[in-house]
Amino acid sequence: MAEIRRDQSTHRWVIISTDNPMDPEDFEPGQKKTRIDSCPFCPGNESMTPGDIFSIPSKTGGWQLRVFPNKFPALRIEGELNKTGTGIYDMMNGIGAHEVIVETPDHAKDLVDLLPDEMDLVIRAYRDRIRDLRRDSRFRYILVFKNEGAPAGASVSHSHSQLIALPIIPKRVSEEIWYADAHFEQTRRCIFCDTIQQELREKTRVVLETPQILVYAPYASRFPFELWVLPKEHLAHFADSPEPLLLEAGDALRKTLEKLRTLLRHPSYNFLIHTSPLAAPTPAGYHWHIELMPRLTHVAGFEWGSGFYINPTPPESAARFLREVKPSLSGG
Amino acid sequence: MAEIRRDQSTHRWVIISTDNPMDPEDFEPGQKKTRIDSCPFCPGNESMTPGDIFSIPSKTGGWQLRVFPNKFPALRIEGELNKTGTGIYDMMNGIGAHEVIVETPDHAKDLVDLLPDEMDLVIRAYRDRIRDLRRDSRFRYILVFKNEGAPAGASVSHSHSQLIALPIIPKRVSEEIWYADAHFEQTRRCIFCDTIQQELREKTRVVLETPQILVYAPYASRFPFELWVLPKEHLAHFADSPEPLLLEAGDALRKTLEKLRTLLRHPSYNFLIHTSPLAAPTPAGYHWHIELMPRLTHVAGFEWGSGFYINPTPPESAARFLREVKPSLSGG
Repeated sequence: MAEIRRDQSTHRWVIISTDNPMDPEDFEPGQKKTRIDSCPFCPGNESMTPGDIFSIPSKTGGWQLRVFPNKFPALRIEGELNKTGTGIYDMMNGIGAHEVIVETPDHAKDLVDLLPDEMDLVIRAYRDRIRDLRRDSRFRYILVFKNEGAPAGASVSHSHSQLIALPIIPKRVSEEIWYADAHFEQTRRCIFCDTIQQELREKTRVVLETPQILVYAPYASRFPFELWVLPKEHLAHFADSPEPLLLEAGDALRKTLEKLRTLLRHPSYNFLIHTSPLAAPTPAGYHWHIELMPRLTHVAGFEWGSGFYINPTPPESAARFLREVKPSLSGG
Repeated sequence: MAEIRRDQSTHRWVIISTDNPMDPEDFEPGQKKTRIDSCPFCPGNESMTPGDIFSIPSKTGGWQLRVFPNKFPALRIEGELNKTGTGIYDMMNGIGAHEVIVETPDHAKDLVDLLPDEMDLVIRAYRDRIRDLRRDSRFRYILVFKNEGAPAGASVSHSHSQLIALPIIPKRVSEEIWYADAHFEQTRRCIFCDTIQQELREKTRVVLETPQILVYAPYASRFPFELWVLPKEHLAHFADSPEPLLLEAGDALRKTLEKLRTLLRHPSYNFLIHTSPLAAPTPAGYHWHIELMPRLTHVAGFEWGSGFYINPTPPESAARFLREVKPSLSGG
């Protein structure tokens, strides 16, 4: 018998299939990267991208990490918002920032191949770009995300993350805050802190635990092997969290990606950082986290159209498989 | 300059790219169907599927349309819901119905290839299955949808629709009802009726209009060539609408699919019927509609994770391209 589970932080319903659950070997493997000559993100091709916002030099010469504006930005930084209503419709100009963070000069490397101190640079770059952009009062939200692999929406195969600064708050974040506020109003507790406590008690969905960080498969996971990375401490803003905690989160994320790579053979994936909006008062019950979604199945449009998901791999199985993956010799 | 538009019925934000908009020829074509011997939905292979719930005989012998339970159902019809809470988590057993509607015996045909009276049978089957299943008081919602093409999630290429009867209301429908209620409370008007009026006045997003039906590209379309099919009359329940109107909607849907096929060269697509929940009081401001989404782009996971979309084809361009497609000689 399948289970219909409700996600406590969004009130989204998910059917968790238990009759014929899909195991790791039931999914198609992904693809390893291959070097191409014309990669715009490789060293030597810097002129193919807009100029750096900043870069970090490598110990061996050249750069280790680069941040620059997206060449084909979804939004532009110059101009006025000019909010306009026409009848029932509302719009504003596409003002925002859209940046690319190239995490390594090496085309063959994934995020998981970075050395621990190279991963630290990536996490610090996320934080520092948010801190810089939030000084612009037109922006209400900054979304950091990564698309890895073509099925996950990556148009350039060289490993990179993206950042979009927005004059609006994305709907999923508003929703999470709305439900978190309602829970806080009722209980004076954070729904994410409550989740962490319950997950640490039940243990069946825990993938990785470090002194400050928890990685687990959500109770109502939408996708096979969906994972969330959270600080155990109640922290609303990613960019204001203590640096040692942020670096520990980056390390936990990298180790989690390594487990996924081993178990699912180079899957495509997306991750996003959900953090509190910029200008508004900090929501009392909100708690930043990273949502990580391997791209293993074709999501039918009905899942977008209904907001209702069918997940063929119970999160308890996903977590068990991932816990059993041995760390490789490379990396931390 | 891109535009950031808000959808009036869900308050979802979408970036509509206008700098380098994508035209029909910028998208990869889809694939025509090819006949395979082992198709479980072809005549002669009926033993490969569960037995019929009902079927409609063809004028030339055999069947024209079949409805049967999904062989690998997401939900099962037998059992009790047994709603359970564990700490902060809520679940119930996976009780429901999951049915398949095979729309034609001909493996080579798409829905668009049906003759007008064959399409009528499909629409009547949707209606009649809803009317039958809603007598079961465990169900709160019935979702009719179609996945066409593998990228859209179809696992069998023979043209078919699906129906899922659910003990819960899918989140997207609840949301639409919530916003529709809020608009009704404020204005005593239906937000969908208001939309229809504005679309008929502005005309730029209209694709097709018949006496009772409007097909248009929504102002804040999430996807290139996303289209909605609505009755002009305010009707909350698909299955209680007058039969002539339903058949006119089916015909408009088929003509719209034909335009998409010509313009976008056999795209994969999904459509879903959004109608009112079963048992609850009929929402005053809700209005059934069909949401149709061609699958032309890889949706990056960040779009699920944020509920925030970037659409490279303005709906005004999509509608203009589609209006200019000449109807083919086949079909109505």
